Amino acid sequence: MHRIVLARRPQGAPTPESFRLETLPLPQPGEGEVLVRVTSLSLDPYMRGRMDDAKSYAPKVELGEVMTGGGVGTVVESRAEGFAPGDVVFGMTGWADHAVLRGKELRKLREGLPASTALGVLGMPGFTGWYGLTIPGAAKAGETVVVAAATGPVGSMVGQIAKAKGLRAVGIAGGREKCAMGRDVFGFDAMIDHKAHTDARSLREELAAACPDGVDIYFENVGGMVLEAVLPLMNTHGRIPLCGTIAWYGGADTSGPDRLPKLWRQILVNRLSITGFIIFDHWQHFPDFMAEVAPMVEEGRLAYVEDVAEGLEAMPQTFISMLKGGNLGKQIVRLAPDPFG
Amino acid sequence: MHRIVLARRPQGAPTPESFRLETLPLPQPGEGEVLVRVTSLSLDPYMRGRMDDAKSYAPKVELGEVMTGGGVGTVVESRAEGFAPGDVVFGMTGWADHAVLRGKELRKLREGLPASTALGVLGMPGFTGWYGLTIPGAAKAGETVVVAAATGPVGSMVGQIAKAKGLRAVGIAGGREKCAMGRDVFGFDAMIDHKAHTDARSLREELAAACPDGVDIYFENVGGMVLEAVLPLMNTHGRIPLCGTIAWYGGADTSGPDRLPKLWRQILVNRLSITGFIIFDHWQHFPDFMAEVAPMVEEGRLAYVEDVAEGLEAMPQTFISMLKGGNLGKQIVRLAPDPFG
Repeated sequence: MHRIVLARRPQGAPTPESFRLETLPLPQPGEGEVLVRVTSLSLDPYMRGRMDDAKSYAPKVELGEVMTGGGVGTVVESRAEGFAPGDVVFGMTGWADHAVLRGKELRKLREGLPASTALGVLGMPGFTGWYGLTIPGAAKAGETVVVAAATGPVGSMVGQIAKAKGLRAVGIAGGREKCAMGRDVFGFDAMIDHKAHTDARSLREELAAACPDGVDIYFENVGGMVLEAVLPLMNTHGRIPLCGTIAWYGGADTSGPDRLPKLWRQILVNRLSITGFIIFDHWQHFPDFMAEVAPMVEEGRLAYVEDVAEGLEAMPQTFISMLKGGNLGKQIVRLAPDPFG
Repeated sequence: MHRIVLARRPQGAPTPESFRLETLPLPQPGEGEVLVRVTSLSLDPYMRGRMDDAKSYAPKVELGEVMTGGGVGTVVESRAEGFAPGDVVFGMTGWADHAVLRGKELRKLREGLPASTALGVLGMPGFTGWYGLTIPGAAKAGETVVVAAATGPVGSMVGQIAKAKGLRAVGIAGGREKCAMGRDVFGFDAMIDHKAHTDARSLREELAAACPDGVDIYFENVGGMVLEAVLPLMNTHGRIPLCGTIAWYGGADTSGPDRLPKLWRQILVNRLSITGFIIFDHWQHFPDFMAEVAPMVEEGRLAYVEDVAEGLEAMPQTFISMLKGGNLGKQIVRLAPDPFG
């Protein structure tokens, strides 16, 4: 089997030297365990946080340890009740082409859609967008939601569920191609290209024009300039579900004026609610998500876009590129044909 | 009649020149209105915000206009249904010894406790503490709450309701006398003197020792160094009801490192909920508050302390001093003997 381990902790953006490809003998499942052949792996921004030697919401990856991550694949050998060879499953396989996991750590996938959807639109990222918009976001028809990384698997879910619920959805993304995709594929009412702006004030002007009734929900997954642009546009009793601050990952420059007093005052004056959430705390809502969204995907009422790279050895470079916005849609890496393909 | 108007907008702390005392003919109530002789006026930190020419949650006071504020007093003349001379009432009288208000803007007070309690423990400040701790704070037995300005009418309510609900209550106040009052009169488990600390790190060390199980609720009414000290001590799923940022009122120096990225990350990593609230939005909960707290006050199970100044002309200097922490307990200004004694 092959796997990719953390070789060196990055300062700022990861580099190819942050990772190392290893070859090991094929592992054998113990009692209650299952050997899975991975067909597709997920790449997600949260993985960057796990590479740091810092307190976070999940254990960091140790040096020499396999990089953490979700994957889908087929069962090769099972010593766990309820799993048989050929079953298609999702689990936290890590960056590897084979994984041994306990049966209770695996979720069996039903046929109908490509298995890779369990990594994106019908997996953790889609669920994150749905949960954040619905529960802490408390989305109501007639309101306006703003989301960055709008063509990614989280943002595109936010936009589409918002439209389905009767909200105005305004997306932010980098570059013309993504903005066109946001409008044409995901149905955002307006898309704003952050690459056309070099400061928050200029971005804010375009945002204000796109949000004539102000902003009721800012789905926060980036931080940085976008946060600064959106905050003054928030309406009274606005909500900010906060699930990521990627613009500030990895030691971004944070000198300059202290914006905390201003933020604190804005939370107060506008009676905002800011709710940090980590989707891993909320799996009890996953069945509700699937019940609502899976039929929408199956019937073609909810779009998803995958950006597919090929081969385990492509993981590091694809991850590095994704963190810079180089992907178009949900980034996955295919190791073998999709079993439901 | 006498009243105090806003003479000049302050830069930073107000000065005596910010105010002007005026003498006017006694006003006459129109149809539906009531003339009230004020016996006690309230002084509260929120009044500082109303003096600025800035967007806030309530209209600013215009230059030459009477300073905003609540008062209690007795009805002198009534042309409103349900009010008769001698009734004791609460209303937004402004800084004045007489006021004409519409009947529906007044609340009749029941006998039993001094009328001035309607300005503090059983008024807006007490209600603020009770609401913030109970609703956005979602206080649960066994948790730890930290509150600054702990001997003020908001903080002392937070501490006592917390104790009644089985929480550990840790208060912060300025000086030995207030700390002794916090422990002895209001029953805080621990009191910390912020004047003994010159930086957030040192304050945090004493706080950490006083909160061996971390902090579940930080009732935020000050901002500044206290916020910076508390934030890293917050437990996962902690709550920060935010009703004031007095440390940052009036143009405090905010240069130095930008703390926003760190705050944003902490909200996320610890899944905090921060809820800005303005108590004026939540009057529908006031009957619940009174039903729960008024009997506690009447039966002596909930303490309150008033710091009483005398005479309308004392309002400016007492306000200026209060903003610097010069008061001990709820600050009121008495214009005439309390009608309920």
